[in-house]
Amino acid sequence: MNDAGAVAAVRAYIDDHRAAFLDDLAEWLRIPSVSAQPEHAADVRRSADWLAAHLRRTGFPTAEVWETEGAPAVFAEWPSEDPDAPTVLVYGHHDVQPAALEDGWDSDPFEPVVRGNRLYARGAADDKGQVLFHTLGVRAHLAATGRTAPAVNLKLLVEGEEESGSPNFRALVERHRDRVAADAVIVSDTGMWSRDTPTVCTGMRGLAECEIELSGPDQDIHSGSFGGAVPNPATAAGRLVAALHDEHERVAVPGFYDGIVELTERERQLFAELPFDEAEWLRTAKSHAPHGEAGHTTLERVWARPTAEVNGIGGGYQGAGGKTIIPSSALLKLSFRLVAGQDPERVEKAVSAWVAEQLPAGIRHTITFSGATRPCLTPLDHPALQSVARAMGRAFEQDIRFTREGGSGPAADLQDVIGAPVLFLGISVPSDGWHAPNEKVELDLLLKGVETSAYLWGDLAPH
Amino acid sequence: MNDAGAVAAVRAYIDDHRAAFLDDLAEWLRIPSVSAQPEHAADVRRSADWLAAHLRRTGFPTAEVWETEGAPAVFAEWPSEDPDAPTVLVYGHHDVQPAALEDGWDSDPFEPVVRGNRLYARGAADDKGQVLFHTLGVRAHLAATGRTAPAVNLKLLVEGEEESGSPNFRALVERHRDRVAADAVIVSDTGMWSRDTPTVCTGMRGLAECEIELSGPDQDIHSGSFGGAVPNPATAAGRLVAALHDEHERVAVPGFYDGIVELTERERQLFAELPFDEAEWLRTAKSHAPHGEAGHTTLERVWARPTAEVNGIGGGYQGAGGKTIIPSSALLKLSFRLVAGQDPERVEKAVSAWVAEQLPAGIRHTITFSGATRPCLTPLDHPALQSVARAMGRAFEQDIRFTREGGSGPAADLQDVIGAPVLFLGISVPSDGWHAPNEKVELDLLLKGVETSAYLWGDLAPH
Repeated sequence: MNDAGAVAAVRAYIDDHRAAFLDDLAEWLRIPSVSAQPEHAADVRRSADWLAAHLRRTGFPTAEVWETEGAPAVFAEWPSEDPDAPTVLVYGHHDVQPAALEDGWDSDPFEPVVRGNRLYARGAADDKGQVLFHTLGVRAHLAATGRTAPAVNLKLLVEGEEESGSPNFRALVERHRDRVAADAVIVSDTGMWSRDTPTVCTGMRGLAECEIELSGPDQDIHSGSFGGAVPNPATAAGRLVAALHDEHERVAVPGFYDGIVELTERERQLFAELPFDEAEWLRTAKSHAPHGEAGHTTLERVWARPTAEVNGIGGGYQGAGGKTIIPSSALLKLSFRLVAGQDPERVEKAVSAWVAEQLPAGIRHTITFSGATRPCLTPLDHPALQSVARAMGRAFEQDIRFTREGGSGPAADLQDVIGAPVLFLGISVPSDGWHAPNEKVELDLLLKGVETSAYLWGDLAPH
Repeated sequence: MNDAGAVAAVRAYIDDHRAAFLDDLAEWLRIPSVSAQPEHAADVRRSADWLAAHLRRTGFPTAEVWETEGAPAVFAEWPSEDPDAPTVLVYGHHDVQPAALEDGWDSDPFEPVVRGNRLYARGAADDKGQVLFHTLGVRAHLAATGRTAPAVNLKLLVEGEEESGSPNFRALVERHRDRVAADAVIVSDTGMWSRDTPTVCTGMRGLAECEIELSGPDQDIHSGSFGGAVPNPATAAGRLVAALHDEHERVAVPGFYDGIVELTERERQLFAELPFDEAEWLRTAKSHAPHGEAGHTTLERVWARPTAEVNGIGGGYQGAGGKTIIPSSALLKLSFRLVAGQDPERVEKAVSAWVAEQLPAGIRHTITFSGATRPCLTPLDHPALQSVARAMGRAFEQDIRFTREGGSGPAADLQDVIGAPVLFLGISVPSDGWHAPNEKVELDLLLKGVETSAYLWGDLAPH
């Protein structure tokens, strides 16, 4: 079959099956698999069970729920019939960020709704939509090529704790090292530049997260009787936040930047050539000014520079009116995005030591780190990366450019344990609202994901 | 009647009526008159109605509920039969701080319970207990002296918004200037040094309070996709908090200290002579270290130095686990204690200007001040202050010493509008837990308050 015929066959198959595919996705999105909230543990398990069943229905001979110390993952395998077929592992996650109607959603985050070209639901883009496009993709691949098994030995590993920092993922991969072995890893948990400029991502930032509890008085005390004469944990929390950065907006934790891989001039040039409109980017960021590390552009800041952000802060009275107290305690939730060359464990140690040094006498603290994620970077000239770009190029009918991703995923762990290159295939766009209210996926792009997946397995196999 | 006889008569009367008095107090404490919480507005009104009825039962010929723009106050009047009797206005408040069982109370804050010598309830000491001791006090005064009306023209003004900063109190007093006219004002809304060292307070700190709302992104955004490149309102909140003080723990808002009355060497000496045990004070403060403005003792810091305290801070995700967002907004509740020479309106202007200057581009803010309270200070050698000290001395059977109070009340407004000296009569002790869980009053001290009130009116009248 010539290329035009192959494309036509793939597209015809997708057209015929898109309605059922979207029904399946909606069914999955209705399961509130929020890994960060213990009350949703059963939902995360239900989500894993749903996916394993769905993969079996798709045709995967093997689809298993894998237990971890935390939430379950799903593994599926569909061997090729070609003896020299390479093995590819697709990575994604089936857990989602917390979401509640009152956060500003226009409709129930766990009741998917289609408005025009958009499907709104928590997880629509991050990451259930992008996991599921591979299932219709492999069926289209088979239908268009007349195969009864994929051109590659296809494996899927879909974890259940990505939104909680993947605390048990590395151990899981190490335990099942033989099962997940692959020649290449395809991560479908990123986005692309825009619907007009489709791109392949070459790396992700890593992540270290911590919660710091600060205790001052044993209970809330009167700010008149005692104010000015004892340490206030809310003040201490504010001071920690302020001390996190220096006057150049660089992270001020000693040792934080040790060993980082700096951007090359060529990479800065590639970033600078992208059709970047800062005003438009700010609209996507729902923000009103750029702000960040001196000496770097916005794209460099989000893709290639490490950060320290306050995800949450709390202490004392937050209700209506006033309450003249010195609060008993305060809470900080911090996250650090990391770039190649940074190691989460080393960053955690540096942060722990720094916090302990910052606090005054009379303020006690605990610091708890949750699952760390290592940064990841793939060389631009890797042949498998070129395959991904070609498959996307056929689906999108244009040249594919290269970006990085500011978000984090456990890609580096896969690279380490499996010893294979990690490639990023994602069709989400920045306005999809990951982690935010009204998360959505654009339906035509979701189907481009299906199509890319349908072309990719043939391109990766020996010709 | 000689002095011993007068004391015996007062004590006998109190003994006979203490049970009924405590029942009345408990009834009043059951009304959750929390002025800061709109949902308790009806309870604040119920509290005012209860008090007016109780004052009429006590014998006050006039007891009225006075409306304000906010919560109602209670005014009562009992003229003397002596043509040359001076007029005394007693001040207190019938509203209370917010309280909820889950804040750490051992029992329902609005279901008074007696354990040993202690009566536990929100408002037991601050301020319902201390308002009510005057009602049994005046009855004991009449019984012991055989009078049918007090030795002074006795007035009570009990407001309903003290815990919200008395936003309408000054206007109320100005509107009723003729009704509240007095030769001296007795404020019963303070404490004393300890049960072993009874004291009279000579001044209170003032108060300015504000709530600052900081807005960054229009909604929570992904800290991976956008982190490091837009301003974070929680970070901005932390930096504001950190910038509030300089390295000597002095308030860093420009103009904050303008015009303040510094402590004299004599006052510092008087403070230093009090039996102050810092370790014990820290236990009362439930705190683990002293901390405050350089160059001042703990007592100077809480009684005679202005402060800036964080009463509440909030922003972003505060639930279980993590959520890697840049929050859309953050909130700060700050309060400033003020000393003689500071003017709340001037401080508010200085704080407003300072906040606006601190914030980066992209962070919008609103700042809202709630009711301000002016500081107040009474000369040590004032004759009416000596009367209060003598009346307390008879009740406590020892010499009375002098302190100040770190808390705030609208005493300065009374001094301004009425043009009379303000004297402080309070029997609360520091461990009473004002504004904190498990607020209580010590029953024997409460009855010393009754007794002091019973002696005071005769001492203030011409002999």
